Amino acid sequence: MGCLKALLCDGGQIRLADVATPVPSPGDVLIRVTMAGICNTDLEVTAGYRPFTGILGHEFVGMVESDPLGELTGKRVVGSINVYCGECPYCRRGETSHCLERTAIGINGRDGAFAEFLALPRPNVHVVPAGLGDIEAVLVEPLAAGMRVVEQVHIQPGHSVAVLGDGKLGLLSARVLSATGSNVVVVGKHGHKLSLARSMGLRTAAVDDFTGPADVVLDCTGSVSGLETAVRLVRSGGTIVLKTTVAGKYKIDLSPIVVREIRIVGSRCGPFAPTLALLERHNLDLAGVVEAVYPLDRGVEAFEHARRKGALKILLSI
Amino acid sequence: MGCLKALLCDGGQIRLADVATPVPSPGDVLIRVTMAGICNTDLEVTAGYRPFTGILGHEFVGMVESDPLGELTGKRVVGSINVYCGECPYCRRGETSHCLERTAIGINGRDGAFAEFLALPRPNVHVVPAGLGDIEAVLVEPLAAGMRVVEQVHIQPGHSVAVLGDGKLGLLSARVLSATGSNVVVVGKHGHKLSLARSMGLRTAAVDDFTGPADVVLDCTGSVSGLETAVRLVRSGGTIVLKTTVAGKYKIDLSPIVVREIRIVGSRCGPFAPTLALLERHNLDLAGVVEAVYPLDRGVEAFEHARRKGALKILLSI
Repeated sequence: MGCLKALLCDGGQIRLADVATPVPSPGDVLIRVTMAGICNTDLEVTAGYRPFTGILGHEFVGMVESDPLGELTGKRVVGSINVYCGECPYCRRGETSHCLERTAIGINGRDGAFAEFLALPRPNVHVVPAGLGDIEAVLVEPLAAGMRVVEQVHIQPGHSVAVLGDGKLGLLSARVLSATGSNVVVVGKHGHKLSLARSMGLRTAAVDDFTGPADVVLDCTGSVSGLETAVRLVRSGGTIVLKTTVAGKYKIDLSPIVVREIRIVGSRCGPFAPTLALLERHNLDLAGVVEAVYPLDRGVEAFEHARRKGALKILLSI
Repeated sequence: MGCLKALLCDGGQIRLADVATPVPSPGDVLIRVTMAGICNTDLEVTAGYRPFTGILGHEFVGMVESDPLGELTGKRVVGSINVYCGECPYCRRGETSHCLERTAIGINGRDGAFAEFLALPRPNVHVVPAGLGDIEAVLVEPLAAGMRVVEQVHIQPGHSVAVLGDGKLGLLSARVLSATGSNVVVVGKHGHKLSLARSMGLRTAAVDDFTGPADVVLDCTGSVSGLETAVRLVRSGGTIVLKTTVAGKYKIDLSPIVVREIRIVGSRCGPFAPTLALLERHNLDLAGVVEAVYPLDRGVEAFEHARRKGALKILLSI
């Protein structure tokens, strides 16, 4: 297949480049990417927060070009991002996202999806049900991050859940958590995003007006100060789920966490299969989260757009 | 009963003073205190960390002098420290230690146990089984704080539990957690305390040698830097239980907590009844934790002793 276009990150700079078609390792599936999403993690990588050199991108949908076992060939698929060894103590416990030899597509030690082709181990690949559009499919990765919260915390029907942050991850997570029967409110700062949240059927509150206390607070602020706000809004004995990964140290007073017996749960990537099943059963009305779609050729411009304050999801059509 | 001796905290100063015998509120039990323990929280109160004026002390054993219902009169008792309203949303959920109107003996809004008499609501009072000595009884409050960890975190047999800190709370908590069948190691800095821990049947490690990773890390360091050490020693997906309440803000990098999906659980006071039951069934071999016993008259001197670096439990005989 020769020479192909890809969006590369090199020394914190992004550029469109010609790359060789990946040669799948034994057991890898080769996927022709059709659509991909820009995530805040991509912005952090290009801002130098994480050291990474290679093809960016970890939210995608595509068609299987070749599968060593044959059966996936021609299927529309999405893929989970953590590639694991299967041998270490974490993998043996089934906690493959904490594999000691872990790589992650487009983030850590492995090329990503902002390219015409992507090679991925077969266990990472999930077939997209026929009823789902490409936009829903490309959002499975961030929606799964919301589903991860349901895996980690026993959120009960009737529990109050405050999703702190009205950005992409906040809106998508709130949509997933609403499906659990809990009482979700998106707490944010931006009128137009809270308005979008309401159009997606979510309850909203301005952060200056909301006093809680919530049983569960999900920090999707992307800001180091999110934890402090979450401590203020969570009930004593309640749970804060941290999604924010921001570089640098932050000063915090730990004593209210002890005295008020607050739980803090770090939360990263989630399970694809139940997220696809949820999307198949329910229309989560997600289209409003997408702000623009750019062709891969205009990928650098797409990144500039994604970096604008308040930007929602930017997709790349490949 | 007229005028009685008590150890008062006033503007961060402690002094022995004559006080009036407390007049029990309706429903309160009046207890003649026989022995009490000095806790790090008492030291923090007298160091001005918490604003408190009144009689100090919240670890005690005593004899019931009068009980409005009669049946406790003459019994040897201990008492849980949080006095609650029974009416607020927390109390209605049974989470009385987070009562919105909470007071705590010798810490917050209510006189404590470093006195000849103490008045306490009846639901806070627990009868001490005949087989237990006064020293075990006076240690029920800090042992219950260790038992609280078992209430909050599902520690499984075979789990590795690192108790960080070889002080009083660390040793007592390690003793309680060992009873759960988990694999407990006390991780500390002080040779003589680690030696004491071993004489109590506990496994030990020097903090510079211990690399973990532990399934659960209990921070009993009493230092704001304890959390950072705990993050280093806990496994990905593991749990850190925070016991340290220290004034002031501490700088911490939150991203490893998110990326490694660490859980942090604030933990305070624990349940008396199961702790008394544990002590009745098992000899926890606790006497070594007590470093000295002072009469109440020498209470100020007892505090000076308790403040010495590396001091273990100091008791007051009343």
